[in-house]
Amino acid sequence: MDMLRTAFNVITLEQFSEDRVRIGKVIDAVIYCMASEERLTRDFLQFLPNLQTVCFIFRGIDQTEVELLRERGIKWTALPDVQSDSCADLVFGLILASSRRIVEDYRLAGAVRARDANLYKGCYLFLGREVSGSTLGIIGMGSIGYKVAERAKGFHMNVLYHNRRKRSDKDEAEVGAKYFSNLRDMLPLVDTLVIACPLTPETKSVIGAEEFEMMK
Amino acid sequence: MDMLRTAFNVITLEQFSEDRVRIGKVIDAVIYCMASEERLTRDFLQFLPNLQTVCFIFRGIDQTEVELLRERGIKWTALPDVQSDSCADLVFGLILASSRRIVEDYRLAGAVRARDANLYKGCYLFLGREVSGSTLGIIGMGSIGYKVAERAKGFHMNVLYHNRRKRSDKDEAEVGAKYFSNLRDMLPLVDTLVIACPLTPETKSVIGAEEFEMMK
Repeated sequence: MDMLRTAFNVITLEQFSEDRVRIGKVIDAVIYCMASEERLTRDFLQFLPNLQTVCFIFRGIDQTEVELLRERGIKWTALPDVQSDSCADLVFGLILASSRRIVEDYRLAGAVRARDANLYKGCYLFLGREVSGSTLGIIGMGSIGYKVAERAKGFHMNVLYHNRRKRSDKDEAEVGAKYFSNLRDMLPLVDTLVIACPLTPETKSVIGAEEFEMMK
Repeated sequence: MDMLRTAFNVITLEQFSEDRVRIGKVIDAVIYCMASEERLTRDFLQFLPNLQTVCFIFRGIDQTEVELLRERGIKWTALPDVQSDSCADLVFGLILASSRRIVEDYRLAGAVRARDANLYKGCYLFLGREVSGSTLGIIGMGSIGYKVAERAKGFHMNVLYHNRRKRSDKDEAEVGAKYFSNLRDMLPLVDTLVIACPLTPETKSVIGAEEFEMMK
């Protein structure tokens, strides 16, 4: 932020919100972070008549927002792959935490510490299920999807993926992944499903009630 | 349990506890599970004058218990490696959950759902720290330690280990692990430390205040 202030007149979202009509007129560029409470809607953009550039400082860009920017002829930039590793780590953290019930276990441990030792007797309920050797399905084998597959290899998981196009034989062999051109052939086989594709009109609603029905 | 009952007269810990002196006399074998509320202490074994066998149905055996059995000439068996994969998975789940603060994030999400949206503003506090590319130290490169290293490779972690003896060059190369004969040389380098050695008189207190002091 300090670095930005040396080159720009920085207006925070809070300052902007004090008088959107007046302050919006002087804004040339927006830095857009993922945790922002505001989305780039048509309404929001109306307050920014002189906007020229939007810098997304994350990867998972909503294509409907990009479409609005394109309509207005506003340039945009996005982060390159710097977050893919962190993202794949977190995906794996969530796979392990949900399969092995780490949050529930943590609460259980807290309850035991509080001397409610009866709860401990139920601890086998929280074993969850095995991750090693299970089958992982990945929708979207781009940068993040591939890094998830790399990690899955260390867990001896059986990795299946669906993507617009097949990765090279070399890429597949390195992580031991198997391609499914048809998502519906893959879904009945997977124990865990990771969605790692961008949100576009084509991928919207890629998983619905019908797809859930096809899973184990 | 049903299978056991076809071949044995099964007495639960609860039944045994009703009259330890009387019931203890008829017990020939003990099946000992990790979550048991009882430990194999000298006092406990006094109630079992005719005990011939103990079956540990877990791996992390306390050598002081084994020593007591040896004194009494009681045979014991333990589970082979069937739990090493699950254990390594859980180790990794805990590394990711603690580094990326999954439990705190879960609570935060609960708070946000409860419309305490102010908490969400602090969400950057919960980013935690990067696992990918960080340095993992493993004390005890047996079955579990090695499987942890296998998983770490997928996260491009820098793997260091301390063990009674060096693993073969081939084993090391496969997971990219580097041996330290002296634990104190390894400790200052690691971001995360995993202890995967059995509890023996030699390994007891392997990490104390002094060792913590040497870490980052």
